[in-house]
Amino acid sequence: MEGGGTKFACAVGAGPDDIRSEIRFPTATPDETLARAIDFFRQHPVAAIGLAPFGPLDLDPASPAYGSITATPKPGWAGTNILAAFRRAFDIPLAFDTDVNAAAFGEFHWPPANRGLDSLVYFTIGTGIGAGVIANGKVVHGLTHPETGHVRIPHDREKDPFAGICPFHADCFEGLASGSALAARWGRPGESLPDGHPAWELEAGYIASALVNVILTVSPQRIVLGGGVMQRRHLFPLIRAKVKELLNGYIASPVFAGTMDKYIVPPALGIRSGALGALAMAKNYAESDRI
Amino acid sequence: MEGGGTKFACAVGAGPDDIRSEIRFPTATPDETLARAIDFFRQHPVAAIGLAPFGPLDLDPASPAYGSITATPKPGWAGTNILAAFRRAFDIPLAFDTDVNAAAFGEFHWPPANRGLDSLVYFTIGTGIGAGVIANGKVVHGLTHPETGHVRIPHDREKDPFAGICPFHADCFEGLASGSALAARWGRPGESLPDGHPAWELEAGYIASALVNVILTVSPQRIVLGGGVMQRRHLFPLIRAKVKELLNGYIASPVFAGTMDKYIVPPALGIRSGALGALAMAKNYAESDRI
Repeated sequence: MEGGGTKFACAVGAGPDDIRSEIRFPTATPDETLARAIDFFRQHPVAAIGLAPFGPLDLDPASPAYGSITATPKPGWAGTNILAAFRRAFDIPLAFDTDVNAAAFGEFHWPPANRGLDSLVYFTIGTGIGAGVIANGKVVHGLTHPETGHVRIPHDREKDPFAGICPFHADCFEGLASGSALAARWGRPGESLPDGHPAWELEAGYIASALVNVILTVSPQRIVLGGGVMQRRHLFPLIRAKVKELLNGYIASPVFAGTMDKYIVPPALGIRSGALGALAMAKNYAESDRI
Repeated sequence: MEGGGTKFACAVGAGPDDIRSEIRFPTATPDETLARAIDFFRQHPVAAIGLAPFGPLDLDPASPAYGSITATPKPGWAGTNILAAFRRAFDIPLAFDTDVNAAAFGEFHWPPANRGLDSLVYFTIGTGIGAGVIANGKVVHGLTHPETGHVRIPHDREKDPFAGICPFHADCFEGLASGSALAARWGRPGESLPDGHPAWELEAGYIASALVNVILTVSPQRIVLGGGVMQRRHLFPLIRAKVKELLNGYIASPVFAGTMDKYIVPPALGIRSGALGALAMAKNYAESDRI
């Protein structure tokens, strides 16, 4: 189950090429939405479920609120304990992580092109920005979970006087480069801006700054960029060129000498990274008792 | 063996409380320096050695240059294969990683206060800036190794018109906040600037920006700040306050509600983090064939 702020997606199966049943429905109230998801899995019995709702989540098994959505601005959802609701309904292994961690794990786990990697970063750049980090073969959690959408990046106010729209940090990465920021800066949705519009050079620059910082911090073997904004495929070559320019030859790896078209890539699983990631979580959790 | 750009430190023993013998000597030419280190270990036979020289290093076992220092500006050292030199001299397990990864691993492995963690970030802020990242209980390598000193952070040129001194990126973190940057900006060494000098507010702000980005990217359970600049202990409370201000309540963890004096800390191993980290690498490598 991938539980996004806008849509929930539930799928039953054994892998990307073996999906037995699948539904998508809009995110409504917690009660209504979770009942619908639970009902789907009752009708399609499974051995384990991966639960991957939108965050921030309480992922600390020692916390009384473990399994809950914490401080979300989404009306009605703060404090909803997703895992507890499923535990009441099912007596099977239930893996639990954020939607974006699941998407990262899905991209890491399933695509043949990513076999043999032990690190990968997945960004979703849409209404908001999130990221999941795989290091040493596993999803990175640490203190809570990454919130890489909110990193601070250089913002040249002469070139871009837009103040940023993040309610917490104004001009963090999400505040400057999310779909919501694009719409607020240009007064119309990103979808309506043509490829040659100056919006895209600026957007590619902000994304490249965030990517360079991730490259310098965790040195991932692959970076996957998903989400609504990244549907604009002309962004990929712009971002790759700016990453190269910003790194300026500092990292001695053949990756940065080439076009990087195998390094900074769209999701191999398309819009199913999250749901297929949740499926991989369920599979791993049932087999090894941890994701 | 910790091999810094200025000093080499070799130690023999079984842990921080059981060091049998120890030497430090200035870094000279590669031949002279490695001969001295090899000679020390010949006189004090050991079961395994952890080699932790300054980077950037080739850490890819499949590469013909595996074990070498790569593109260092330090005269004579680029291309020096440290691991090969030790393999010619010793037929015992030899672990190999960067000095700053070793320091991170030392702080993660030895101090009783850090037992039970599975993530930690160590920064050395001195002449240059480097970082080692532990995630999921292991040192993060990925494509090459982290170079977190070179991340891009906001730089308000009205407040700080200094252009930055990084030859690759001008005003990256190292370019703005290393000991060399401090000296170049203020025209005298950081050591000579009194505690109340405006240099320190600015310095704490840059360090806090970099720390916030690391917190948002890998969510470490502890951050250790070492290196010459961090000898100025009055920086710690300034940095903690600015981290809290920049995060602005976004991460729902009790850590950020408190003083953070157990979260952002000086090295528990003092100036021995690197050498004791190399020793931990040797121990783990001999026991499990990997660090």
